[in-house]
Amino acid sequence: MELKEALDRLGQLEHTLYAYRYAMGVMSYDSETAAPELAAEGRGEALGTLSEVEYQLTAGPETGLLLEALEQHKEQLTTQQAAQLRVLKKQYDMYSKVPAAEVVEYTKLLNKSAVVWRKAKNENDFAAFAPYLEQLVETSKRFAGYFAPDKHPYDAWLDQYEPGMTRKELDGFFALLRSRIVPLLHRIQTEGQAPDISWLQQHWPREGQEKLSAKVMEIMGLTNGRCTLGETEHPFTTGFSRDDVRITTHYYDEDFTFSLFSVVHEGGHALYEMGVSPRLARTSLSGGASMGIHESQSRFYENLIGRSRAFAGVIWPVVRECFPAQTENVTEEQFWRTINRVEPSLIRTEADELTYCLHIMVRYELEKQLFDGTMQVKDLPAAWNRLMEEYLGVQVPDDTRGVLQDTHWSGGSFGYFPSYALGSAYGAQMMASMRKDLDVDALVAQGSLQPVTDWLGEKIHQYGEEHTPDWLLQNACGAAFDPAFYVKYLEEKYTMVYGLQ
Amino acid sequence: MELKEALDRLGQLEHTLYAYRYAMGVMSYDSETAAPELAAEGRGEALGTLSEVEYQLTAGPETGLLLEALEQHKEQLTTQQAAQLRVLKKQYDMYSKVPAAEVVEYTKLLNKSAVVWRKAKNENDFAAFAPYLEQLVETSKRFAGYFAPDKHPYDAWLDQYEPGMTRKELDGFFALLRSRIVPLLHRIQTEGQAPDISWLQQHWPREGQEKLSAKVMEIMGLTNGRCTLGETEHPFTTGFSRDDVRITTHYYDEDFTFSLFSVVHEGGHALYEMGVSPRLARTSLSGGASMGIHESQSRFYENLIGRSRAFAGVIWPVVRECFPAQTENVTEEQFWRTINRVEPSLIRTEADELTYCLHIMVRYELEKQLFDGTMQVKDLPAAWNRLMEEYLGVQVPDDTRGVLQDTHWSGGSFGYFPSYALGSAYGAQMMASMRKDLDVDALVAQGSLQPVTDWLGEKIHQYGEEHTPDWLLQNACGAAFDPAFYVKYLEEKYTMVYGLQ
Repeated sequence: MELKEALDRLGQLEHTLYAYRYAMGVMSYDSETAAPELAAEGRGEALGTLSEVEYQLTAGPETGLLLEALEQHKEQLTTQQAAQLRVLKKQYDMYSKVPAAEVVEYTKLLNKSAVVWRKAKNENDFAAFAPYLEQLVETSKRFAGYFAPDKHPYDAWLDQYEPGMTRKELDGFFALLRSRIVPLLHRIQTEGQAPDISWLQQHWPREGQEKLSAKVMEIMGLTNGRCTLGETEHPFTTGFSRDDVRITTHYYDEDFTFSLFSVVHEGGHALYEMGVSPRLARTSLSGGASMGIHESQSRFYENLIGRSRAFAGVIWPVVRECFPAQTENVTEEQFWRTINRVEPSLIRTEADELTYCLHIMVRYELEKQLFDGTMQVKDLPAAWNRLMEEYLGVQVPDDTRGVLQDTHWSGGSFGYFPSYALGSAYGAQMMASMRKDLDVDALVAQGSLQPVTDWLGEKIHQYGEEHTPDWLLQNACGAAFDPAFYVKYLEEKYTMVYGLQ
Repeated sequence: MELKEALDRLGQLEHTLYAYRYAMGVMSYDSETAAPELAAEGRGEALGTLSEVEYQLTAGPETGLLLEALEQHKEQLTTQQAAQLRVLKKQYDMYSKVPAAEVVEYTKLLNKSAVVWRKAKNENDFAAFAPYLEQLVETSKRFAGYFAPDKHPYDAWLDQYEPGMTRKELDGFFALLRSRIVPLLHRIQTEGQAPDISWLQQHWPREGQEKLSAKVMEIMGLTNGRCTLGETEHPFTTGFSRDDVRITTHYYDEDFTFSLFSVVHEGGHALYEMGVSPRLARTSLSGGASMGIHESQSRFYENLIGRSRAFAGVIWPVVRECFPAQTENVTEEQFWRTINRVEPSLIRTEADELTYCLHIMVRYELEKQLFDGTMQVKDLPAAWNRLMEEYLGVQVPDDTRGVLQDTHWSGGSFGYFPSYALGSAYGAQMMASMRKDLDVDALVAQGSLQPVTDWLGEKIHQYGEEHTPDWLLQNACGAAFDPAFYVKYLEEKYTMVYGLQ
């Protein structure tokens, strides 16, 4: 195939994939926001038909031939075209190298596992879920052997979520956290001055929370006609193009800060999606570079900006406007210390900024051992509980609030968790670099987030998935990933919040 | 092709069409409810790709061969299979018989016309829209010649929206309205006791309106996990299957009855969609039989039930609960007379139950003459204004509030308007028939709408698009369409509301 023909076909393939993914993405968003409960079956059938087409487009023989042809002209491809080839090839390998019959079996296993896990979690019955988890681990290991035979199976899955990431690098990352954050937590608990958070225990009317969301959207630059805010059980972001991004939140009457920081977090994801260059529109590169890089943007806004002392000065007056009665006797300082309190907890999704990464460390160590074969599924609950006590100092009372809490494993997502912690660490490193170019605190204190977003846009957002996480970090920070920035940031911040010596 | 193979392919085709229509339907619903403003372009591209596939499935040569094969086995088809063939064949003829190049030109014309019409309406500039309207009429006439060469072009388009409907039948229908409703309106205006509606001019908080909507959904049996209520600029209903129906409303601070009757109206559409038999799921027959039959169900609930004296007794206590302060000095009788006031107006979508059909009559007469060639586009405004004065007694001050008010013509929808009036008339005939089986007033007074919905379900809803409007009326009423029921209903009702002798 001539280069010109191959490029034409590549363009067509990307446009067609875009259309199917747009449709399935909107159907999925709709299912969480607007669809009636009993719509699931009919939607499932429609999704089945469309995803069959998407599968053919991604892993079919025609696509295989096209990718081979592009491979042969590799030297003549532009950076963007080469990146399109890389991303499409990775998907092709992933989907085409696993025997179709095994994919069918795996899909059935996933459907069943989701149901069994939910029941097991509700009934605190790990034994019921264990055989499914064993099969999920076994299948994931086998599949890794098909699509990345030269890699350790856990590295193969890490690479799916965080291109280039390995156990070796993560071992170093988590060893540093273990040696520095576990002791820091201990010091906070024994020597720290805990903030008074009793003021938070009030009723926070929905109307005020909605007003606050609208104001946050404005401050973050999300009111540009390209992003909307919806309401779902669990907040999330989904983006179909730079001009079509949806974020969601959830309002709890008893705590306005949940929705506040959900909007800031999802808003960070949204700014990334909206910042991808128009030249990557309708290609496989129009989304984020990796789970970790995406999470770096959301956590950058949520924690490094949103929970900063400077931002408290911007958002507290707005909070007071939205809830005048409830905030009458609370100071900005109290607010800031409240939103930065450290409380080791059982549940990852409720964790504070500091202990969050320790939750991830527990999961990483267990996943690695499961894939190494040094851990049996049946021994997971005891190991989980031991690590939770060791790192977070909490006693796990049951598996519902322990090893069964997260949906990820029942969905076959192994190697996904580390990206949450990586995101925070990437973000801290980017902040250190940004501070060389911008007086971040001064800007944030004025409520001027645009220069911050512009900096991230120039260094990260515009490239979408054109470059790897490594390249992006190098581009933004002039260096490879270095978790020392993250540890330093946490130590400095919490020394200040908790008045440590 | 053997019958068995043809039927297998028919099933596959219907399932595939279902998936694409589901996707495009959700994308369209999403565009009205949740999508950001600037998402339009990206959505348009995705819709373009998917509708190209839908077009091939509907009008492609493979489908042509399949329909031919089914045609040859016609005697062996079940009623349902024959109906599927009928509906698919009609779509096939419609789309495949118009030369592709002309379809492309027409699509461009529609896109341009929509923009030009909106501007012309805003600027009261009919002359700007006139050349586009001329082309739209000409193209519609030409297309009718392609897909229904044996019919008068206007009859061909009527048949698209209301299978079997003709100018001949509509002429009789509207002649009856002209001879009976125009004089009735005149009597109301000269002899009637107008209700005091001044109490309506208050602020109606959104919270109360939302509560009222929720209660109406409950009373109508729409809270079954198969229907949701959304919010849009203009209320509408869209259904993807009997288990997945969406209705929308719009809240106006200055008038709670708009949303109230929007929910009842759209709820009637929703009950129809939810009442289609499961055996028709994922076929071309799973929606309503025609525009007119669909409208008969929505207007049945909105007017024949919703604005009845009996229903006022059910809904007024709920209104009082939602707005205690605003309704303190208002009686149920006042409420009922207020929601049935007659006020000839300029705008169709704001018209009351009685004068609504006169708005339609104006449009019908003009469309017919445009298609006959007895009316030039340039003469439309004057003709419009003359008819509005003759039938409704109103002076049209400008084309914005006159001939330019509706979007339909700019979208190439000619022959669509009559279905609105037909719906009301069908509904009145069904009510007369229902009264022979049920004590409707007593049931409604108790708030028991289920037997009413069950009756409609048995006679109409369950059949989806399996049968024609004629067949359904015969099934429900034991007779062909007879507009006398509608006129009698309106005369009796408004004699009572306005205390005429």
